[in-house]
Amino acid sequence: MYRTHFISELDSNLDGKEVRVAGWVHTIRNLGGKIFILLRDKSGIGQIVVEKNSKVYEIAKDLTLESAVSILGVVKSDQRAPNGVEVHAKEIEVLSFAKSPLPLDVTGKVKADIDTRLRERLLDLRRLEMQAVLKIQSVAVKSFRNTLYKNGFIEVFTPKIIASATEGGAQLFPVVYFGKEAFLAQSPQLYKELLAGAAERVFEIAPAWRAEESDTPYHLSEFISMDVEMAFADYNDVMKLIEEIIYNMVNDVKRECSNELKILNYTLPNVKIPINKITYSDAIEILKSKGLNIKFGDDIGTPELRVLYNEIKEDLYFIIDWPWLSRPFYTKQKKDSPQLSESFDLIFRWLEIASGSSRNNVREVLENSLKVRGLNPESFEFFLKWFDYGMPPHAGFGMGLARLMLMLTGLQSVKEVVPFPRDKKRLVP
Amino acid sequence: MYRTHFISELDSNLDGKEVRVAGWVHTIRNLGGKIFILLRDKSGIGQIVVEKNSKVYEIAKDLTLESAVSILGVVKSDQRAPNGVEVHAKEIEVLSFAKSPLPLDVTGKVKADIDTRLRERLLDLRRLEMQAVLKIQSVAVKSFRNTLYKNGFIEVFTPKIIASATEGGAQLFPVVYFGKEAFLAQSPQLYKELLAGAAERVFEIAPAWRAEESDTPYHLSEFISMDVEMAFADYNDVMKLIEEIIYNMVNDVKRECSNELKILNYTLPNVKIPINKITYSDAIEILKSKGLNIKFGDDIGTPELRVLYNEIKEDLYFIIDWPWLSRPFYTKQKKDSPQLSESFDLIFRWLEIASGSSRNNVREVLENSLKVRGLNPESFEFFLKWFDYGMPPHAGFGMGLARLMLMLTGLQSVKEVVPFPRDKKRLVP
Repeated sequence: MYRTHFISELDSNLDGKEVRVAGWVHTIRNLGGKIFILLRDKSGIGQIVVEKNSKVYEIAKDLTLESAVSILGVVKSDQRAPNGVEVHAKEIEVLSFAKSPLPLDVTGKVKADIDTRLRERLLDLRRLEMQAVLKIQSVAVKSFRNTLYKNGFIEVFTPKIIASATEGGAQLFPVVYFGKEAFLAQSPQLYKELLAGAAERVFEIAPAWRAEESDTPYHLSEFISMDVEMAFADYNDVMKLIEEIIYNMVNDVKRECSNELKILNYTLPNVKIPINKITYSDAIEILKSKGLNIKFGDDIGTPELRVLYNEIKEDLYFIIDWPWLSRPFYTKQKKDSPQLSESFDLIFRWLEIASGSSRNNVREVLENSLKVRGLNPESFEFFLKWFDYGMPPHAGFGMGLARLMLMLTGLQSVKEVVPFPRDKKRLVP
Repeated sequence: MYRTHFISELDSNLDGKEVRVAGWVHTIRNLGGKIFILLRDKSGIGQIVVEKNSKVYEIAKDLTLESAVSILGVVKSDQRAPNGVEVHAKEIEVLSFAKSPLPLDVTGKVKADIDTRLRERLLDLRRLEMQAVLKIQSVAVKSFRNTLYKNGFIEVFTPKIIASATEGGAQLFPVVYFGKEAFLAQSPQLYKELLAGAAERVFEIAPAWRAEESDTPYHLSEFISMDVEMAFADYNDVMKLIEEIIYNMVNDVKRECSNELKILNYTLPNVKIPINKITYSDAIEILKSKGLNIKFGDDIGTPELRVLYNEIKEDLYFIIDWPWLSRPFYTKQKKDSPQLSESFDLIFRWLEIASGSSRNNVREVLENSLKVRGLNPESFEFFLKWFDYGMPPHAGFGMGLARLMLMLTGLQSVKEVVPFPRDKKRLVP
């Protein structure tokens, strides 16, 4: 057995008791008579004391930072120690001896740039900040799922190797599939729609791929997409669901990750329900009034969103009713103004974190919609044929996990929050 | 609004009240004076009555099976109706009119073969049996995660596009990655080990790919792998964790999916803890004693497992301590008998549903282990280098979701349980 207790479980109730702890040597100080080791495990950091006359002194003396060890010792209350207790070592087993010096400082005192951090990623992931990021992410996706379970959704898994592009042909990664041409899915869009056409309320959290040429803090070529699709519903129903998801998520992270937020020195945004909505057309007017050269039909990208945020001053807001032609082919037009669509983006300050819409459920309209976008309906027949067999009205959205994590951690680049990011220049580690 | 109530929410308390329901026309019978529609939504099936003199009679008369409709009507208690109530229609809105005849019978009276079912998959997924499978799967993965959360695990996401093979070079799908050679991950193995080397307890539920040439009921080229990795632990710790996972999962499915199990007419296996263990060597002896031509070092495949099951007669059992050379390079040898390994497979009757081991955490041993398997340590340097920096002892396993689903549903082929399976001949839908 490598441990009897996690470090966070040690307290003065164990005073005088023998325990076994295991973890990594976070820091080590030799103060002549005594060696003080800060030992780190997944639960926290605790102090180990090795007396000079102890039989394990020789082992402790040669320990290196980040070596993995298992230590048997006796708990002693001590007000000066980090948790009010320290462990006096009787046995030290070196489970894995770390080379010295380390290529990256795990304690975080010596800062490293992002390229170094990604190259030396294992050590970087051991930093308390990255441990906090990983924990917050796990709590966030758990919370996302819990809100959906509560609303009667089931989790599904859709195919990732596909025969044709889901949203047009750009930015696809080709796969050699038993000698046939295939691609990696850009999104689960068409498959989640089909599943909603059978099971009504479905969600999926899974990788998706886009061959992004550009190097930005907000794009990766492989990313985790949180996808939801809901039958007998429209975009207003889906926006309400997002409000509930985000509200619960921020509160769950606040409650379950207070230590982690402290480590990151970050305060979560307050989520007010309902989340404010602004129409695309109004957003364009505001941007024009601020002197931007922008017109109906143009995209509202991050630079424009920064200007908009300075006006709106809301941490979270929806931009709704986008021009129909600027949205994917499956988006539903607005009944009274068909140049617009029943669509929305959810914006955190100046970053789009989710995008959704009511979907069109009429075959002829979908075929026309493909054609006006230069796409061939024949390539989509596996999808279109089902609109002959009772596809109900439906709506849904996709949310990018890495971008959401920027909102939940205060970090500035998706390359920081993803353990092993993939972009044009990164395929290893 | 498409509905005010789900069908399962209708009961005699609503007698005389107006409700709006939405769903698909499951069956329709015209009994001269009246039309009886069985309407199906995600919650169940309920009866709609259309009187001959009603203003919606003409609409109801022309309805087709699987058309999606929204119906406003008045609830009336009636002992003869499926849930003790029926809805007398006042308005019928046809949301999507289905072509007739259907290429597949959704009520399940006319049976179809698996090829037809996969081709007409949307209609197949609407069958109550497939709805039950989807629900059970969602509950199973929820339960899997809950047991892991309880044990202090966090959910992680590892890269799926990789530069080199994780477990040897066979059966990889090549990806064209910005002009570079890359592959789809066969498993998250090396990345989950690295993450355990930082965060200790991690799990992932994600797609993995193997270019399976063979067409069997147990293999797909794209599958969902449930992966767990645990630092400061060995294979015994991991087997204990699996026992807890499976025990909770079977009980959660029993509790949350009693209707679904009834629809499938399936009784779940009883899970007894601890799950029986048999050594590989003993298994080989049993198979020999049954006249099989098998020797130490041979694989124990499904045909052999069927023979073994007839002897052992346990629904679930571990086969432990496999020959070291027949396991992947990262597997740890047994200390006292290095030709064996600290490894296990979890078997459901005659089907392997999980596979795991203690992992080796010594760089030199790993390098040698690669070499004796004909692999080049240089290709694994991104992984091996970390064993110089305090990689603790660790252990883990991978579990195939589709195979697990055979245990939870009684179905016979993974192609049935996966909504859109991928194999050598299937890339669409």
